[in-house]
Amino acid sequence: MRSDKRDKKDPSGQFAYEGLDRVIHERARLAILSSLASHDAGLSFNDLKDLCALTDGNLSRQLQVLKDAGFVEIEKQTSGTRPLTTCRMTRTGRKKFLEYIAELERVVSNAAPTRVDAQLHPNRGGLSTA
Amino acid sequence: MRSDKRDKKDPSGQFAYEGLDRVIHERARLAILSSLASHDAGLSFNDLKDLCALTDGNLSRQLQVLKDAGFVEIEKQTSGTRPLTTCRMTRTGRKKFLEYIAELERVVSNAAPTRVDAQLHPNRGGLSTA
Repeated sequence: MRSDKRDKKDPSGQFAYEGLDRVIHERARLAILSSLASHDAGLSFNDLKDLCALTDGNLSRQLQVLKDAGFVEIEKQTSGTRPLTTCRMTRTGRKKFLEYIAELERVVSNAAPTRVDAQLHPNRGGLSTA
Repeated sequence: MRSDKRDKKDPSGQFAYEGLDRVIHERARLAILSSLASHDAGLSFNDLKDLCALTDGNLSRQLQVLKDAGFVEIEKQTSGTRPLTTCRMTRTGRKKFLEYIAELERVVSNAAPTRVDAQLHPNRGGLSTA
């Protein structure tokens, strides 16, 4: 079958989504940045772990990647005798996160006709049912 | 610094985004599914490569992952003497893609207050500037 519906106006790379920064796009890191974006005052390690449903090990690893990229800052203090780690988004992190979100909106917006079509033709899909 | 703004109503895993299916979330595969979702009649291998700005090798690899997951179908024919490969989204692929898009919308929607805040306080961010 030929792809008859090819739109000659489609520019190359229309769906490449190069704005989806790989540092942010990884699901656990997206969860972390999304949490921090919603909590200006920062979040403790334990709160972050909870909000993102991550293990200690995975959260530590992903925070290190985000710190190395300059997207988060990590402050270690003690509260009484207990260590307290606070994580916060940097200005760069917030800027990059918002750019990433703008690209996500483009992904969602590109899918809008598919959603309408799915409501009109719920069984469409597959070469055999064309 | 304590995370003073912690919202006690936040449920665990609020930002875990478990609906971001890992098969779809990888950027190249998201590009492929997004392209196919917009082209009901399917797309040739070369058109897909172009729209997603992928190399032959990477497109082949990612298509195989999507085929193994049951999200795309691949048909190989010949057009005259040239081989013609057509890719199309399956019903399952479309369903899963739309579920994924709904979760992306949640990510975008969670970021809405941050966007407003960024307009009001463009320099906010970082522990040192709290």
